[in-house]
Amino acid sequence: IRQGVPEVIYGQGKTPEQILGIVKAMSDRGAENILITRMSGDAAEFVQESIALDYHPIPKIGIVGRCKEVTAQGKIVVATGGTSDLAVAEEAALTAEVLGNEVERLYDVGVAGLHRLLANLDVLMQAKVVIAVAGMEGALASVVGGLVDCPVIAVPTSIGYGASFGGVSALLSMLNSCASGVSVVNIDNGFGAGYLASMINHIGGAV
Amino acid sequence: IRQGVPEVIYGQGKTPEQILGIVKAMSDRGAENILITRMSGDAAEFVQESIALDYHPIPKIGIVGRCKEVTAQGKIVVATGGTSDLAVAEEAALTAEVLGNEVERLYDVGVAGLHRLLANLDVLMQAKVVIAVAGMEGALASVVGGLVDCPVIAVPTSIGYGASFGGVSALLSMLNSCASGVSVVNIDNGFGAGYLASMINHIGGAV
Amino acid sequence: IRQGVPEVIYGQGKTPEQILGIVKAMSDRGAENILITRMSGDAAEFVQESIALDYHPIPKIGIVGRCKEVTAQGKIVVATGGTSDLAVAEEAALTAEVLGNEVERLYDVGVAGLHRLLANLDVLMQAKVVIAVAGMEGALASVVGGLVDCPVIAVPTSIGYGASFGGVSALLSMLNSCASGVSVVNIDNGFGAGYLASMINHIGGAV
Amino acid sequence: IRQGVPEVIYGQGKTPEQILGIVKAMSDRGAENILITRMSGDAAEFVQESIALDYHPIPKIGIVGRCKEVTAQGKIVVATGGTSDLAVAEEAALTAEVLGNEVERLYDVGVAGLHRLLANLDVLMQAKVVIAVAGMEGALASVVGGLVDCPVIAVPTSIGYGASFGGVSALLSMLNSCASGVSVVNIDNGFGAGYLASMINHIGGAV
Amino acid sequence: IRQGVPEVIYGQGKTPEQILGIVKAMSDRGAENILITRMSGDAAEFVQESIALDYHPIPKIGIVGRCKEVTAQGKIVVATGGTSDLAVAEEAALTAEVLGNEVERLYDVGVAGLHRLLANLDVLMQAKVVIAVAGMEGALASVVGGLVDCPVIAVPTSIGYGASFGGVSALLSMLNSCASGVSVVNIDNGFGAGYLASMINHIGGAV
Amino acid sequence: IRQGVPEVIYGQGKTPEQILGIVKAMSDRGAENILITRMSGDAAEFVQESIALDYHPIPKIGIVGRCKEVTAQGKIVVATGGTSDLAVAEEAALTAEVLGNEVERLYDVGVAGLHRLLANLDVLMQAKVVIAVAGMEGALASVVGGLVDCPVIAVPTSIGYGASFGGVSALLSMLNSCASGVSVVNIDNGFGAGYLASMINHIGGAV
Amino acid sequence: IRQGVPEVIYGQGKTPEQILGIVKAMSDRGAENILITRMSGDAAEFVQESIALDYHPIPKIGIVGRCKEVTAQGKIVVATGGTSDLAVAEEAALTAEVLGNEVERLYDVGVAGLHRLLANLDVLMQAKVVIAVAGMEGALASVVGGLVDCPVIAVPTSIGYGASFGGVSALLSMLNSCASGVSVVNIDNGFGAGYLASMINHIGGAV
Amino acid sequence: IRQGVPEVIYGQGKTPEQILGIVKAMSDRGAENILITRMSGDAAEFVQESIALDYHPIPKIGIVGRCKEVTAQGKIVVATGGTSDLAVAEEAALTAEVLGNEVERLYDVGVAGLHRLLANLDVLMQAKVVIAVAGMEGALASVVGGLVDCPVIAVPTSIGYGASFGGVSALLSMLNSCASGVSVVNIDNGFGAGYLASMINHIGGAV
Ligand SMILES: Nc1ncnc2c1ncn2[C@@H]1O[C@H](COP(=O)(O)O)[C@@H](O)[C@H]1O
Ligand SMILES: Nc1ncnc2c1ncn2[C@@H]1O[C@H](COP(=O)(O)O)[C@@H](O)[C@H]1O
Ligand SMILES: Nc1ncnc2c1ncn2[C@@H]1O[C@H](COP(=O)(O)O)[C@@H](O)[C@H]1O
Ligand SMILES: Nc1ncnc2c1ncn2[C@@H]1O[C@H](COP(=O)(O)O)[C@@H](O)[C@H]1O
Ligand SMILES: [Mg+2]
Ligand SMILES: [Mg+2]
Ligand SMILES: [Mg+2]
Ligand SMILES: [Mg+2]
Ligand SMILES: [Mg+2]
Ligand SMILES: [Mg+2]
Ligand SMILES: [Mg+2]
Ligand SMILES: [Mg+2]
Repeated sequence: IRQGVPEVIYGQGKTPEQILGIVKAMSDRGAENILITRMSGDAAEFVQESIALDYHPIPKIGIVGRCKEVTAQGKIVVATGGTSDLAVAEEAALTAEVLGNEVERLYDVGVAGLHRLLANLDVLMQAKVVIAVAGMEGALASVVGGLVDCPVIAVPTSIGYGASFGGVSALLSMLNSCASGVSVVNIDNGFGAGYLASMINHIGGAV
Repeated sequence: IRQGVPEVIYGQGKTPEQILGIVKAMSDRGAENILITRMSGDAAEFVQESIALDYHPIPKIGIVGRCKEVTAQGKIVVATGGTSDLAVAEEAALTAEVLGNEVERLYDVGVAGLHRLLANLDVLMQAKVVIAVAGMEGALASVVGGLVDCPVIAVPTSIGYGASFGGVSALLSMLNSCASGVSVVNIDNGFGAGYLASMINHIGGAV
Repeated sequence: IRQGVPEVIYGQGKTPEQILGIVKAMSDRGAENILITRMSGDAAEFVQESIALDYHPIPKIGIVGRCKEVTAQGKIVVATGGTSDLAVAEEAALTAEVLGNEVERLYDVGVAGLHRLLANLDVLMQAKVVIAVAGMEGALASVVGGLVDCPVIAVPTSIGYGASFGGVSALLSMLNSCASGVSVVNIDNGFGAGYLASMINHIGGAV
Repeated sequence: IRQGVPEVIYGQGKTPEQILGIVKAMSDRGAENILITRMSGDAAEFVQESIALDYHPIPKIGIVGRCKEVTAQGKIVVATGGTSDLAVAEEAALTAEVLGNEVERLYDVGVAGLHRLLANLDVLMQAKVVIAVAGMEGALASVVGGLVDCPVIAVPTSIGYGASFGGVSALLSMLNSCASGVSVVNIDNGFGAGYLASMINHIGGAV
Repeated sequence: IRQGVPEVIYGQGKTPEQILGIVKAMSDRGAENILITRMSGDAAEFVQESIALDYHPIPKIGIVGRCKEVTAQGKIVVATGGTSDLAVAEEAALTAEVLGNEVERLYDVGVAGLHRLLANLDVLMQAKVVIAVAGMEGALASVVGGLVDCPVIAVPTSIGYGASFGGVSALLSMLNSCASGVSVVNIDNGFGAGYLASMINHIGGAV
Repeated sequence: IRQGVPEVIYGQGKTPEQILGIVKAMSDRGAENILITRMSGDAAEFVQESIALDYHPIPKIGIVGRCKEVTAQGKIVVATGGTSDLAVAEEAALTAEVLGNEVERLYDVGVAGLHRLLANLDVLMQAKVVIAVAGMEGALASVVGGLVDCPVIAVPTSIGYGASFGGVSALLSMLNSCASGVSVVNIDNGFGAGYLASMINHIGGAV
Repeated sequence: IRQGVPEVIYGQGKTPEQILGIVKAMSDRGAENILITRMSGDAAEFVQESIALDYHPIPKIGIVGRCKEVTAQGKIVVATGGTSDLAVAEEAALTAEVLGNEVERLYDVGVAGLHRLLANLDVLMQAKVVIAVAGMEGALASVVGGLVDCPVIAVPTSIGYGASFGGVSALLSMLNSCASGVSVVNIDNGFGAGYLASMINHIGGAV
Repeated sequence: IRQGVPEVIYGQGKTPEQILGIVKAMSDRGAENILITRMSGDAAEFVQESIALDYHPIPKIGIVGRCKEVTAQGKIVVATGGTSDLAVAEEAALTAEVLGNEVERLYDVGVAGLHRLLANLDVLMQAKVVIAVAGMEGALASVVGGLVDCPVIAVPTSIGYGASFGGVSALLSMLNSCASGVSVVNIDNGFGAGYLASMINHIGGAV
């Protein structure tokens, strides 16, 4: 394993025992920093009995070891359309932080609250990368993409009802964005967005 | 037929001869104003040989008789995301004008040109009804809906490529709009939007 | 906030504590009338311990403060295809009432009971706006749209089984309506329909 | 082959030569009456050079031999939503006639012209079977099914644009019909509807 | 209500109390025979405390009053592809029986057991109408339609997994049937098939 | 390149010049036998000017060099539901023949002509592999799979109209086959089926 | 029943009592080896009270009687993209083993761990048939198909989230495979893949 | 306009006259470098009569002015699955070159030619960003993403037939990629990929 780079475990569908086992094996191989995504509260409690683990229940993320040391110069902004997109946004934000990035959160700035977005233009403009998280009509990604000149990673969320189709409407909206510089990851894939944002941000040079 | 209210012919799939026949029958019954939608250039030329007809080739609309007398107090704004949405927007605008409405056009003000929309906020704010016409990601309807307090009629267009799926992405985006006061008509149905906008505008009282 | 206009809280996915908090904050800012949609029975009970709240369990709506003062001249008719569409219809009707409209209900008048609809034509004809709520084949919106001359807001419901696809069939049917003046909101979006109907009805002038 | 029962050729994708060949072979085996569906005008002209053929260009049907002798007591009503559904309706009507049924046509009686349908209730009520042909929102089948007590065969047509999806919206609407006694055949399958209607009508007894 | 014709209640989404109320009201109006579909076991037990009710737990059907008196000459055959289609098939069969038809069951004769179908050709050939109930690939309807000369009512079921998509694959397969005389009802709509089969069978004349 | 094994060129989207170039290059490298699929008639004519090429216009296949030497013991049966599936079936059959297999054709034996299939059971039973080619409802694959004990390769075709959705209905039907031993290739992929059938047949041993 | 060939019971939707009944009936008819798929733990416990049964909880497979006697010369390799595909892969592997095949497992060798696949090329190359089991993007089937020269049976799994759509994305990816020799079975259909692989492997000759 | 940064015109649906007009206006405002995408050959010829324009017929790209001056340190690799993906890949590559990037092309290295990809691992490993262009099963993006540590921009193409659904299968495959660092743009959106790649590459610092 590369020195200093955190290891990642995808917790979904793994038992608490399996997760603990993988964490221990990684530690034995020298991993100092481990990120566990999609981790249930039960699994977190079980692992905490053996190892120090920082658990975030809303994005279901567990973090083992030293963290939040910033290794890249630029800043990543995570914006959400509504408050219901919080869990996915935090999966992205925490992933980016664990991977050594400074992250600024701009939550609940979707089209229903466009003035809040416009009131925070300065924050947006300083970003090296923006992660735009939105469900329902997913317009946030296009609006942000039309305002900034940096890469925008769009994350559709499964939040919504009716014709939101579990995130498909937001996904399609984002893929069709008329703003240049926008690309899309899978529905609810906060981790993927955070990981890619960190990759791009680190291209901008180390601290 | 109601006095003064224009008659409508849906031209799609009708031969030039059939259209002329219907126009003549309507005139005989006393219709002073006839709107023909989805009318081919050939049909227009054929009808023009017998009857005075004002033909608009882009929205494929033909108008027979006296027109554009404004009968409602309020104003209808027709906004489009891009220039390619013009044909559908004009179908809506001309329909509304023939039905006695003052119409203001705000074209090419989609999220890729958000500043152009913001620069025209005053026009938008004076509308009694807004018709938002957009293809691709269809975000315009949500953005407009978040800004104004009047009814917004969203018209998805089939403009686009790839995952725009002939207007389905824009349609879904519009149905999922988080802004209140937005409702949706069929893909490319400029006529339906213009007709409904006129209904609503006339509720606001006659000139 | 605008004086006298009710505030709206979307209750879905908010904890009882969060809802109470928002209600209190709104009251502090002077809100006299608050509408809470998609509110669970538990949340209602929790809020009722602190504040007077009128709760409607079927549409899951909670109302705080003075209400039902009619501020618009016209009447809104809410029609449903079957009895199973009641919850969505009541979301629409109560929303419209809280927003100051007189509402008349015509339930269970779908195509399986067309005679019941025809027997109530006078009620339908007096409406300034009609909200047509229907699941399954969603034909009610077209039938109503073919009968009346006012705007019809169609609300597809997720009621049904098999090829009703959670409201998609009704949605498509409504979008394809051959009757002029029909527009559509999201599946089960009774609130959106009630809000838009109120907007349109108020264009018709105050009481 | 059964005596007196017409033979059927599905013309789509067959060359004029192939069709003529099959017709001749059938005649040689004693067929007195042959129905050719989806037959191009070119194929019809080619066959007519060798054999007497009655060709209907709109439904693209060719008929060889003696025909229209009524062999069943009951009457089949073919109703359409609009004038654009004519080709499919005629495929159904001519098929039923060739198979020995009395057929009554009620065209353009969809929800946009509901009064025309209601004005013809007596015709509808006398039917042994109704074939309801409609595109767009396909509400005709439900409306008819709610009015009559006999089997209704619903035929969705590919007529329409936007969210009509080549007949899928009408198909779904018809499958979800809340009226009892309605069943559905493939989009544009006028032949299938006419054939089934004839089967059912003949159960009612010979002339 | 028509004398002797059973009344039908759609039990889905109705409380035991509501169902009992409707049953009592129907009895008071003189109904001698009531069919309740989609009725839960709880509802059945509750109703049975007040009124004699024959309950069938697998198809969830309750029957009140005198029943199974055969009023039509012909026979209806209900065939299923597999044993898992039983509930839907019994909904169809019991509906047809309550409506006065003789019903013969041919279960588990799908393409995986084609020999069982061929071994029962005589039963199939004597039918006035066949109801073909199948999930997964839904080929039964086509196979039966290719063998018999009477109307085949195809009922897709939601039985299956993976690409069966809750009955959509069977539905599509049945709509595309190359065999003449096949029509389709909604997924899992055994009631609709039984009702339509009874309609057709009674056209064949009373006992 | 392996000695004696034919080379394959996918002709779709290649110019006549490109195809000739590839053919010449392959010949220079020692290829004795070249199969060109999806080859236009124009391309065939162009290549034939320089090199001997056996062209089959219906499946659009060109064959260069020595061919049809049988190298496997077993026999491959190619069956089709209708005559319209011929082009795809021939793509499969010719591919298998070029690859050294004995191929028997059973065309037009779908469910509408089930007796023809049953009349040829002996041919079917002697197959080492069966390729079942069908559009519309695609039931042929299931019926064949229920009869034989060898691998069945199902090829859905895009033949059909309405709800056949360009082969999707047949594809879904085939994927849901209840008969064991059935697997599926892409819509219209006769080449893929012929290639796989040859692979399997050669496992059975050389001549 | 054929001597020595195992019988198969599809356990899904059958009660423990039903399964035991079928097992006993099969034993009475002389079956020495019975495979039960989709069998719940409860059913397994219930059957084990009466009869010796080897139960595998992850793939939910029960095996009665003598087993794992290898009757074919070749080897089947079962490969998976990730660890979450294990249950489906084991359904395939155990089915193949019960049917008399030697099976080698290559788990967790998807594109995220391509090096692990390349490190096991020798195992892959010795296979007579490969079963490629993968969810999410399903690329494993194409990668394997591009490497080996034997038949590849692709099994999409419903593992994944968001735009994996319960296995549909993997299914489509596999159907579109550009590698020759790949065919596909239903989502999660491990049994079908194992059964077909055994068929093909036995064509290669007995031990 | 920003100095030195090229202007972009989306040529689709614009007449030659309109394009020339926009080009002249941009030049007048001082633009030295203009990229025109989706430009027809006719439009190119028309513009070339007035202004020097470098036209690329396969990706339909026109370039006005000074170009290809490299302004970023890193290298962008554009890889394609097959030769048919060339047009989209060149749209991406030329866009990136016009925007000041060094671009390396790796064409026809999809899973059917995996060895060609592995043979070029060194090129891939030196990339700052990779653009992976593929149709059909779209596996290239996942394979590349599993090999490299830099951002991968996946571009699904509409190349393919049958279940490729105009690029949807490739799109879904790419969205579900199990490899980290992969994001997706619209089907056939080579321009968007090239633009985003340039943005990311320039974050890595100027030459
Ligand atoms: N572009 C359009 N899209 C949908 N409906 C239309 C359009 N233009 C006209 N209509 C409707 O079609 C009706 C006339 O149809 P027809 O009797 O076929 O001429 C009018 O009353 C309108 O309601
Ligand atoms: N299982 C069923 N599926 C579809 N429709 C049904 C079903 N059972 C009853 N119905 C219909 O529902 C009507 C009664 O609905 P309701 O008035 O809600 O009880 C009956 O007249 C039937 O037409
Ligand atoms: N009709 C077809 N459908 C799908 N793949 C094909 C077809 N014909 C040939 N192929 C494949 O395409 C490959 C050659 O592609 P190419 O290098 O573009 O000529 C062959 O090796 C086959 O695997
Ligand atoms: N091939 C393409 N696909 C999508 N968007 C494009 C493409 N080419 C250019 N664009 C975008 O379209 C904008 C120009 O559009 P327009 O003003 O209509 O010429 C550019 O700024 C690009 O963002
Ligand atoms: Mg931007
Ligand atoms: Mg608003
Ligand atoms: Mg109306
Ligand atoms: Mg009826
Ligand atoms: Mg038949
Ligand atoms: Mg078999
Ligand atoms: Mg291979
Ligand atoms: Mg990577």
